[in-house]
This record gives sequence, structure tokens and C-alpha cells, in this order.
Amino acid sequence: MGSIYGDIFRISTFGESHGKAIGVIIDGCPSGISLSEEDIQEYLDRRKPGQSKFTTPRKEEDLCKIMSGVFEGLTTGTAIMVMVENTSQISKDYDKLADVYRPGHADYTYQEKYGIRDHRGGGRSSGRETIARVIAGAVAMKALKELGVNISAFTQSIGPVHVRCFDLEQCALNPLYMPDYEAALVAQDYVSRLIGEKDSAGGIISCIVRGLPVGIGEPVFDKLDAVLAKAMLSIGAVKGVEFGAGFAVASMKGSESNDAFFVKKDENGKRTISKRSNNAGGVLGGISDGSGLIMNVAIKPTSSISSKQFTVNKELEEVELEVGGRHDPLIVPRAVVVVEAMAAISIFDLMLRNMSARFENVKKVYG
Amino acid sequence: MGSIYGDIFRISTFGESHGKAIGVIIDGCPSGISLSEEDIQEYLDRRKPGQSKFTTPRKEEDLCKIMSGVFEGLTTGTAIMVMVENTSQISKDYDKLADVYRPGHADYTYQEKYGIRDHRGGGRSSGRETIARVIAGAVAMKALKELGVNISAFTQSIGPVHVRCFDLEQCALNPLYMPDYEAALVAQDYVSRLIGEKDSAGGIISCIVRGLPVGIGEPVFDKLDAVLAKAMLSIGAVKGVEFGAGFAVASMKGSESNDAFFVKKDENGKRTISKRSNNAGGVLGGISDGSGLIMNVAIKPTSSISSKQFTVNKELEEVELEVGGRHDPLIVPRAVVVVEAMAAISIFDLMLRNMSARFENVKKVYG
Amino acid sequence: MGSIYGDIFRISTFGESHGKAIGVIIDGCPSGISLSEEDIQEYLDRRKPGQSKFTTPRKEEDLCKIMSGVFEGLTTGTAIMVMVENTSQISKDYDKLADVYRPGHADYTYQEKYGIRDHRGGGRSSGRETIARVIAGAVAMKALKELGVNISAFTQSIGPVHVRCFDLEQCALNPLYMPDYEAALVAQDYVSRLIGEKDSAGGIISCIVRGLPVGIGEPVFDKLDAVLAKAMLSIGAVKGVEFGAGFAVASMKGSESNDAFFVKKDENGKRTISKRSNNAGGVLGGISDGSGLIMNVAIKPTSSISSKQFTVNKELEEVELEVGGRHDPLIVPRAVVVVEAMAAISIFDLMLRNMSARFENVKKVYG
Amino acid sequence: MGSIYGDIFRISTFGESHGKAIGVIIDGCPSGISLSEEDIQEYLDRRKPGQSKFTTPRKEEDLCKIMSGVFEGLTTGTAIMVMVENTSQISKDYDKLADVYRPGHADYTYQEKYGIRDHRGGGRSSGRETIARVIAGAVAMKALKELGVNISAFTQSIGPVHVRCFDLEQCALNPLYMPDYEAALVAQDYVSRLIGEKDSAGGIISCIVRGLPVGIGEPVFDKLDAVLAKAMLSIGAVKGVEFGAGFAVASMKGSESNDAFFVKKDENGKRTISKRSNNAGGVLGGISDGSGLIMNVAIKPTSSISSKQFTVNKELEEVELEVGGRHDPLIVPRAVVVVEAMAAISIFDLMLRNMSARFENVKKVYG
Repeated sequence: MGSIYGDIFRISTFGESHGKAIGVIIDGCPSGISLSEEDIQEYLDRRKPGQSKFTTPRKEEDLCKIMSGVFEGLTTGTAIMVMVENTSQISKDYDKLADVYRPGHADYTYQEKYGIRDHRGGGRSSGRETIARVIAGAVAMKALKELGVNISAFTQSIGPVHVRCFDLEQCALNPLYMPDYEAALVAQDYVSRLIGEKDSAGGIISCIVRGLPVGIGEPVFDKLDAVLAKAMLSIGAVKGVEFGAGFAVASMKGSESNDAFFVKKDENGKRTISKRSNNAGGVLGGISDGSGLIMNVAIKPTSSISSKQFTVNKELEEVELEVGGRHDPLIVPRAVVVVEAMAAISIFDLMLRNMSARFENVKKVYG
Repeated sequence: MGSIYGDIFRISTFGESHGKAIGVIIDGCPSGISLSEEDIQEYLDRRKPGQSKFTTPRKEEDLCKIMSGVFEGLTTGTAIMVMVENTSQISKDYDKLADVYRPGHADYTYQEKYGIRDHRGGGRSSGRETIARVIAGAVAMKALKELGVNISAFTQSIGPVHVRCFDLEQCALNPLYMPDYEAALVAQDYVSRLIGEKDSAGGIISCIVRGLPVGIGEPVFDKLDAVLAKAMLSIGAVKGVEFGAGFAVASMKGSESNDAFFVKKDENGKRTISKRSNNAGGVLGGISDGSGLIMNVAIKPTSSISSKQFTVNKELEEVELEVGGRHDPLIVPRAVVVVEAMAAISIFDLMLRNMSARFENVKKVYG
Repeated sequence: MGSIYGDIFRISTFGESHGKAIGVIIDGCPSGISLSEEDIQEYLDRRKPGQSKFTTPRKEEDLCKIMSGVFEGLTTGTAIMVMVENTSQISKDYDKLADVYRPGHADYTYQEKYGIRDHRGGGRSSGRETIARVIAGAVAMKALKELGVNISAFTQSIGPVHVRCFDLEQCALNPLYMPDYEAALVAQDYVSRLIGEKDSAGGIISCIVRGLPVGIGEPVFDKLDAVLAKAMLSIGAVKGVEFGAGFAVASMKGSESNDAFFVKKDENGKRTISKRSNNAGGVLGGISDGSGLIMNVAIKPTSSISSKQFTVNKELEEVELEVGGRHDPLIVPRAVVVVEAMAAISIFDLMLRNMSARFENVKKVYG
Repeated sequence: MGSIYGDIFRISTFGESHGKAIGVIIDGCPSGISLSEEDIQEYLDRRKPGQSKFTTPRKEEDLCKIMSGVFEGLTTGTAIMVMVENTSQISKDYDKLADVYRPGHADYTYQEKYGIRDHRGGGRSSGRETIARVIAGAVAMKALKELGVNISAFTQSIGPVHVRCFDLEQCALNPLYMPDYEAALVAQDYVSRLIGEKDSAGGIISCIVRGLPVGIGEPVFDKLDAVLAKAMLSIGAVKGVEFGAGFAVASMKGSESNDAFFVKKDENGKRTISKRSNNAGGVLGGISDGSGLIMNVAIKPTSSISSKQFTVNKELEEVELEVGGRHDPLIVPRAVVVVEAMAAISIFDLMLRNMSARFENVKKVYG
């Protein structure tokens, strides 16, 4: 229990790292959205390993197949199933891990919760599980773009190296997905050193949503930021989330943190309400306020490191462990698209829920 | 839509700041739990205003009434309704706010989302809404205590003033609910100064959960930390949440952040698995790992400040605003019990969901 | 667990027969619907006891109070709470029933399920629980009428007496709510005789929905008829439900039961698809087909009868029982409005869900 | 929206008649249940076409593959995905149906709801969709059997031919799955005649559940019978459902329909509460009462008949239609296992929900 997410645009995911396939059923996707395997593959390729020396050298093609819910290039309104078959998984690498609890991993907690676990490559708790999220995110993103909503995530920091300037086009040009050419160079140097030390790095991913209409979010529990917070923390390796000024707001005064409203005129003289600052990060009372949504997410260093670690096995013996296999020294760049995906799924779902907030919209559809 | 929370222990809340009452229906509470109005009142009194000069001088007795679901002192397994009637709300104070959007508040977003809003005291987006959460939290807490689970939240920082030592008993002795006598004095001085400046302060609340069994949390989406993150961000004024080392983990190396497992022996020679550090904050792969759960929550300064602010009204005119009324210069101490309540509701719900994780537990109940 | 119903227009009910109050929170009701206590009271008065000699002579005023979610006569989009305080409940009447399991009632099953029960007047399993349903139904009905959807239920049969003609206006003119003057007379005679015998009667309620747009219902599980079937069977005393030709369809041939489509022209020459018969009862593949929705519901005779019965008590002793109190010899006429209410709630919820079925509707709202 | 079913044991289905595959994700299945593809195939083979001249001669092997959630023969507690690839579907047979609305089918309503439909073989509204239900039902059945719960459905009537005696073992021996040898002969004769007339037949399926503990069902909305009613009506071709005496109860008197309780002693002198009759069908107040659960389901005649029919096409023209392809003259025998499957899924889900009804059970699991 726990592999279903969303209220209207609902996704249901399955699959273990070394099982037959990983995939997702999307229920509640509106009909009439143009959708192809290429649309989805584009996002999957961004999370694919082996893209640079900073990600695992494992070769995984991760090709997706649409199995249902799309007819003649359009979504039909019925359940969409998309999956990626696991092809290059070598299970024997993991046999010696069957009885050992790797530090930082979910081996111990799965074993205790369920009394059994598929230990191969982390089983269900593997990062490969995010394939299903990226697929569903790609579908949501397709719809959101048509609605004028744009979601971009990028690397804000790697270990101690923070970006200092912001050029979103730069992201695709460096393997760390940082919007700052110089910071990216320094960060690459930092990670290269960690690779030499058989160690790993973490970082912060930022996500910005533009074009979101005012009114998205369902108080008092399914607030926009509350829903996104859950979405983010549901991604393995995420240890914190903040919106707008985030934790920094705790040391501000009210007169500083309040964003003053003003009236903005566009070139045609059209007047709209805007804010002079955005400490709120685009959300007031759990509802989007028309400013850009700003969210930061803390990612822990990869738990799988090659250096020697102390741990415990199933028989409650203390043992030494050297995790073999091919691991990412850093998952941050590959996690960027996962953050975007979970944001897209959550926001599209809330936009569909918001459709019935006003009775005049109900009459617009049925009138 | 959005006033229902939880999957098995499900709460449904209602009520506006200046409406007739605020309350909650709790559906799915197990039968046979001893419950009285006093049990609940104890928690409500902790969020009650007027407790010190650092909270609003409004007098609100906030007395709760159990309306259903309890018979002869025990929960019956049917829906429990508890409410607090609004008695001392003076609506006319707020009449001049009917058309003005207060900075930092949800006035503008509610108006845009619904096309109508109850402007009196913030209506549904008022902090008084948390009364319903505290009621439900008190019920969950009653059950959790019997199961050996203990939840304590406290003030970690007020503005720039952080606690430096940790004595939980100290919390009840100072009006700021800080576990550090000296820090509390400094913080009181800081807030007193802000009151003089007609300004307000924020802070960080920490929450620690002890006694949680291993295995709580439902991956891949309803992970323990994911569910708690949503619970926290659903509280008005919260702008961020982190677990264990939280945002600090982003700049650690994997060899630092991984918590090593070891085997602990108790006085009777019983061996259990434990961790040498707790950067994970008690959760691995979204499931409790038997260590203390550690969570920090960032609270923004009270948005209602008495000093002059610039804003906009419904007619899209820029206006000056001085928020009158009786407001908290600081909501952190009153929010502590709300954090505990939302943690309790979420954790008890996940414990009930976990009951069916193993078939051997199903057989234990039906055998 | 089990007192929450619906997906978007979600209702959460509470209250025992002899508790302090019975009521409902409606979450997800669109904003901007005009709503008053009178709108609701009109429906409550139809289920009120004491309307004729065929219903219980108990005096229950059942006056409703709107406690939240309505501001200046309009729904605000936030949770609506409405309740009826219990005033005339005399608990001592029921004391002798504390340990006895009445035949046909839920006394035994509640006791076994929860280990405790509020025995006064049936507690949570009392027919008074339907007050909450009627309240929520009245709200849904208000919205449905504005959308052109009309729901009418009536008494199809009482015991062996079936209606033979159909004049809906007749219903309000006889105490049994039958659309056939003569059948109503015969049925009144039948029930009068049963009253003399300290016995009770059952019957069939039919419900017709007109004006429902094509397309309502969410296959494959939340089909229009499936959702309505659950709604009906959730009403106490209902033992069966059927749509269109219903059980009779089982003995038809395909060539008889298939409803042929044809093209209907209205006075303006507008062509629409219609059906020559309606064995399907207005639903094809779980989706409304534009014909009138037809549903029949079987109601068992009132379980509380004054004649002597054999039963068992909590101590597993066989005892004789004479149920005192003031009971309906027949609940069918009072259940008519409950059937309408549950149909209204279910249909309005499905209409809201259907809003996002097509992406063109999503763009209509956000465009 | 609508392809997810259940609250704890939650299933999510996908697949069109002529798409690549049909299948299901089961989320929330407890860990530690032994499960193989053979366990599931056994049930799929019962719904497989081509078993006799009374079912479609189409050859569909319908072999299932477990894709996730099972490790070394045991469920792991994580999402179980099982699918059947579509192999023998010949789409061109259906090309001429692309624009025609078949009577009795969902062609018209899907087109109107979604603005697009996969017309091949009925697309998502095809009877092949029940493959996913049978798979999930097989898994639930595996667990239920270990808990002592036994579910058996059988054919009660075919057209006008009703069974008169009841020998469950007889069912497997005749192609109509009737528990009465003679009735089965008469019914076969009846259907043979209809085949000659290019017509089709309907019938009634009965389902009996034995061994269900007292206490299953979650009032006031998720009552055992309410949940089952939805489950049954969600199956295509079902037009009605009734419990115990069902519609017949409407013409009984209370003194007849009430089932008297008595105390039953077994050979060891153990005393339990039992009922002298079972008009209630095993459910009181929406909760199982320990008697056998009895449910009848009305199945309409197959809508696809080979004789000429009048209908309408997408261009609103009236046309004549002869449905070609290979169709069942009768789906009742193949639907028996679908009824069992939906009953099993619903009952197992309610049993898992009931685990937390009493706090003493919560303590049993965590104590």
C-alpha cells in the first residue's frame, strides 16, 4: 500500500530494480491529448544513467512502451499504461547483499516491515523506481505546456558549491545541470575528487513553475505547497523541502517577509495584481498567487559508496561492507527530471481538482 | 475540496474564524479508546491565545464538546465529532478588510479561487482552523501513548535566537516553549523589541518522535517523511520542513551522511539493530528505522502586523493598510502543539495502515 | 471507518440516534451556489416522522443549522457543516435493550465488530443517521436543478400492492407517496391492517433522473450504475437495486433487451440520438446515455415490530422480546427522500468528476 | 478516472480489447502470501472463451505473467503487476464498426464522454477488461482461503430456466455452470435454439460466501452489501443485485422477514449466536452476521447478436447493422468467475479495513 498517487490524475506504479519491468498506470488523464512514446522517451533519457562520468556507467536503455490508453496518437481518457522492460540488470552482482543491511539504504526497514524483500539492486526501493514517475510526469508535462504552465528544475548546489548566477540554458550544457558555467566547473572538480576517494556527493535542486494560474491548491490539507512537499519527500534521497524564502524566513521580521501587493500594468494597460517580492514562493494560504512558484529540495549524497563501511547483517552480526556494482557518485543531475516530474504530476492533478472550485466553471462545462 | 486528511484514521474539518463553530469529524478511530473532553481540552489550552504577552490578548475559551462517537467514556468505532463554538469573535473589527488584500495572507488567493470569501478574521484561512487539528491530534495522541509512541515538539529558534542546550522540561516553564532557559530569555527580549516596532517574528519548531516501531511508512508515495512533510506544510505559516540532518546533508559526503548500523545489547543481553548516528532522522526509504524521528519546521513571522503596509484592494487600487485587531507578534509557541497534533494524526494513521503489511498480522487478527 | 462518501463532492457524516446531534460536513462543494437553511429544511421535513398514522408518532422537529461554509447566502467553496440537534430523544425507553439483540437490527453485528455499542435507539445504525444524507442531498439537489437535472423518487409498491398508473403529482397528495390514487388507497388499507397485527410492511421505491447529460459515470469501476448501487445499498433496510428492466432482463433475449438507437428531430429540426426503448435504464457501459435513468430499490419491512419475537442476549441466553417505543409500521414513504438524496449526491459527484474527462473542457476552464 | 478500486487492497487496471495487453497493479497486498502464475491461471482459464459451443469460438490463451511484487514465490508487500498480452486479436474485423453505435454497447456513450474511442472490439468497454479483475480476484482468493473464507458463484438461471436443486459439484460438469443437472440440460437446449435464431440469452448468477467472520463491513457508507453492490454493478452486463431475500422482501411482513436469533451449540458444547432463517443474506446493518452471505446478480443477454439490428452512426444517420465477429450467445457461465473475483477483492479489502476497528487488535499487532 502506497504506490498510488494523486486524486484525479492518479498514478499507480510498479516494478523492482531487477524485476521484469517498471511502469505506471495513469488513470484520470483527460482524453484528446496528443501523446507518443517519443514524448515520454525524451524525459526518460534525461534520467538515464551513463550520460557522463558523474553518473553510473551502467548501460540501461530504458525504452518505454505505451501499452494502453492511447489510440491513433491521442489519449482516450481511459487508463494509460506505460512500461520499461528491465534488460541489463545483472542480479548476481547483488547476491552477497541478500543478508546485509547497507547503511543509508532501505534494506533493513523493508525487511522489518514486510518480513521479506527483493534484495537485488534494492528491489522496490531502488532509484529505478523513479522511471515510473518520470513517465507519468512526461504525460502531465505535455498537458501543462498546452495550458501555459512551465516547470524547470536545475541544480542549485553540489556539496559546498552553490550557483551564483542563473542562466537556465546553461543547464543542458554541463553534466551537472547547473545554470552557472563557473560553478559547474568547480563542482565537477569537487565530485571528481570524491570519486577518487570512493565517496559521494549531495546537493540542492531548485524548481521554478511559471504560468500557473492563481487559485491552484486545495486548503486546508491539500494545499499547493503541502502536496508538493509530499511529492518531493516521496523521492528517495530527499531530506528537506522549502518554498520561497524557506528556512530563511524563520529569522526574518514580518515587515521583511510580507510581500507587498501592487498593481501591474502591461503594455495594453491591463491591470493585474502582482507582488513586489516573492518570499512566499508563489503560494499564499496554500493557493498559487500568480507569482512564480519557487521550491528547493535537499538531496543526500548517494548511499552506495565503494569505500569500506561498518554494518550489520540479518543474523545480527556486525560486518564490514564494500558495496560493489556500478553506482552514481552523485544522483543530483539525474534527479532533476524526477523533481520536475513529481511537480508536474502534482500540479496537473491540483489543476484538475480546481476545475470544480467555482460553480460558474461547472456551468461552463455543462451549460 | 481539501478538508479531509488521512486514509484510515480520517479527519474532516470545518469552520471559519468568525462562523458559528470550528470542529472535526474523526472517522476510522478504533473502538475502545478511553476519551473525554478533558483529554482534548488539555491540548486546546496549549494553543489558546492570551497565555502571555507574546500571544494575542484575545480571550477565547475554546471549550470543546464531544458530539458523537464516544459512549460511556470509550470510543465506539463510529465517527467522532468534536467542536468548539465561536463565542468571542467580533466581526465588525474586520469589516474594513472586506475588500482589501492583506500582505502575507490568503485574502487575494481565496477571492480568486472561489470568487467569494468570508473575510471576517481570515475566514477559513484563519489560524483558528487549527483548533480542529489539535482536537484530532489529541485523540491520536491518546492512542499513540498507549502504544508507547511519544511525540514532543518545541521551539528550536525565534528569529535569530537558537537554542543551545536541550532540556525538554524547560519548555513548559517559559512562554516561548524553548528547551533552553537562557535562549528563551534572549528570545523574549528580541520579541519584546519587535512588539515595540509593531513588527512580528518567526522561528523554527523541532519535533521528536520516540518509541515508533520499525516499519511505519508506506512507500513509494506515502513514505513516513513524505506524509509528515505534507502534514507540516498544510499548517498555515510553515515554509519548509526537513528530516534528520535535513538541508545540511546536501553538503556532506556519503561517508559522513550514512549512519552506520551496529548491534546494541540491552541489560538483558537482548540484541537489536541500532545506528551510530542519525542523519537520516529515523527514516530509511520512507520507513521508520527505530531511531528517534527528527523533524524541523520553518514558521514565517505573523503576517498581521500593526505597522503601515502597502497593498491592493478588490477594485485593483493601491492602498495603505494598518491591520488593527489583536494579533500574535509571534505564533511559534502556539504552533508547537499544532505540529505535534499533525504529527500524531499522520503517524497513527500510518500505524493503522501498516497493520496489514504482513499477512501474519492479518492472521493474528483473524486467527 | 466508512462515514465518508464521494470523491469530489465528499460528505462526512456523524451522529447517533440519541447523541447530541446528527450532521454532515460537505467538502468540495463548488462556491457560488445560493444556499439557505430553508432549502435544506424542505427536504428534512419530507423525512420527518409524525406526518401520518403510517409513520412513527415520535415528535422530532429536526431543525437544521448551517454552521460553516456559507457566507451571505452563498456557498464559499469551503467545508459546509450542517447539523440537527437531537432534542426529543428519550434514552430510558431503550435501557432494557442494552443487552438484547433485536432481530433484523444491527445490535449484534455492531457489538461484535466494535466490542461496544451505543444501544440507545440503535445508536449509529439508527434510521436517524439518514438526516445527514438528506442534508447533503438537499445541497446537491440545489446545484443539480440549476444544471437541469431532475431527480424524483416515489413509492412503486407497498407489500403486495403495486402502482398501476403513474401521476407524479399524486405522490404529495397521499401519505404513502404513491403516484397512483387507487393503489395508494389499497396500500393504506393493507398497512392499517398490519398496524392492527403489530406487524410492519416493506415496499419498492423507484427513482427517475431526467436531464442528465450523456457521459456521466467513470468506468470501469465507478460506473454510474455501480456508484448508485452502492449509494442505495448503503441505506439501511435496502436489500436490492436494479436498473432499467433490471432482474427481468435475465429472462429476455438479446434481440428484446437491446434498445435500438434512432435519430430524433426536435421542432427546430435539431437531430439527436435517442433510443426506442429503455431496458438499459439510461446507462450504457456505466455511462449515462441521455435517456431517463431508471432505478428500483427494495426496502424491507421495518424490523422494529411490537409483536413478540424470539432472540438472544449478550450473555448468550435465548429471550423473548417485545420492542416498545414508537416505531414506523412502514418506512417506505419516509425513505423516498433518502433515495433521492443519495442519488443526488452520487450524480453531482460524478458530474464534477466528469468535468476533466476531456482536455477540451480543461482548456475551457483555464483558457 | 475510474480504473482504481479498493481502499487497502487497491487494484488499478488497464487495457483495451485489441491493445497490447490487459492487466492490473495490486497495491496493498500483504507480504508473505504464496503466489504463482499457476494460482492465477486457474481462474483465468475459467473465464477463457472457447470452452464450449455456448461461448465464443475465439481462441484466446490469456496466459498471465507476474511482472513485479512476488519474490521467490511469495508476495513482498510491494505493488504486484500481472498482465496478459493480447495475441489473437484481429482488429480489421472491427473496422466497419468504427463509426457505428452498436445497440446495448458503450460505443455511443464512450464517444460522447471522451470525444474519441478505441472502437476495436469495444476497446476499454470490452468484456476482456474483466481479465484484470479475475487476476486480482485470484490473488484475493488465495489469501481468503487461508483465512477460512470460501466464495462460490454459480448459474442460478438462464433465460426462463431456473435451477431447482443445488449440487455445487455439478457446476463444473456442465458448460453452463449450473448446480442442477436437469436444469442445465433444459437450459442448453434453450440456448442452442437461440444460437439458431442468431439471438442471445441472459441469466442470474448467485454467489455464496461461507466462513466470513462476524464484523466485516464499514458503515455507514462502506457497508458490506453496499460495497458488493458496487462491485457487481461495475461488471458489464449486470443490471441488478440483491441480498438474501432481496426484492422478495418488499412484499413480506416484518414478522416474516426478521430472522430470529437463537443459540447454537456445537458438539463440544460451545455456544454461538445463529439465525433461524437468512432473509438478511448474512448482513445486518451492513456488517456480516456470521451466516452465509447470499447475493444474486442479474446478467443481461449478450448485446452482440448476429441478427439484423437498427441503429445510428456517428454522422447521425440511421443504419442497419449485422454484428459479425465471434461472440458468446451467453456470457453467464464465463461471468461466474468474474462475480467471484469481484466478491473476493471486495471482501478481502473490507477484512483488511476491519483490522483496525478495535483498539485491542491494534495492540495485538504492535504489542
